Amino acid sequence: MELATKISNLVGIIAGIITTSALLPQAIKIYRTKSARDISLAMFIFLAVGVTLWLIYGILIKEVPVIAANFFSLLLIMAIIAMKIRYR
Amino acid sequence: MELATKISNLVGIIAGIITTSALLPQAIKIYRTKSARDISLAMFIFLAVGVTLWLIYGILIKEVPVIAANFFSLLLIMAIIAMKIRYR
Repeated sequence: MELATKISNLVGIIAGIITTSALLPQAIKIYRTKSARDISLAMFIFLAVGVTLWLIYGILIKEVPVIAANFFSLLLIMAIIAMKIRYR
Repeated sequence: MELATKISNLVGIIAGIITTSALLPQAIKIYRTKSARDISLAMFIFLAVGVTLWLIYGILIKEVPVIAANFFSLLLIMAIIAMKIRYR
């Protein structure tokens, strides 16, 4: 593997870990407070659709960081949508 | 440009438009209600850092959809962070 590819993969993997992790404190906050009034349902539905497309894009360009980050993001987005619908 | 590249670029551009647009209803919701109690500040700070890294990743792999989507996302994330700090 070329050095440039190694570096971009590393940056992508770190970026993926951070953006996917970003969803965790939000999911935890809703779970703890049982409140999601200020959360935009539209935001998370858009995110679910968009992240699914990013996942397809990652598969098309064969970039593992893009695939992995978007797969785990999608799971957390689904959990947040479920809680938003449940707790309002 | 190869057909496969054209298709992946198109998917990436649509994905970018949707995930970036996702931030808009959240930003509008906070602006209108002047309330951001249920929003996780940690989520948006993580997102800002992660999206900055995705932007660098996009520049490294020279993928315009990744660069454009993350640039505009970063602007909206900054606006949401500013409102979260202001309105709490």
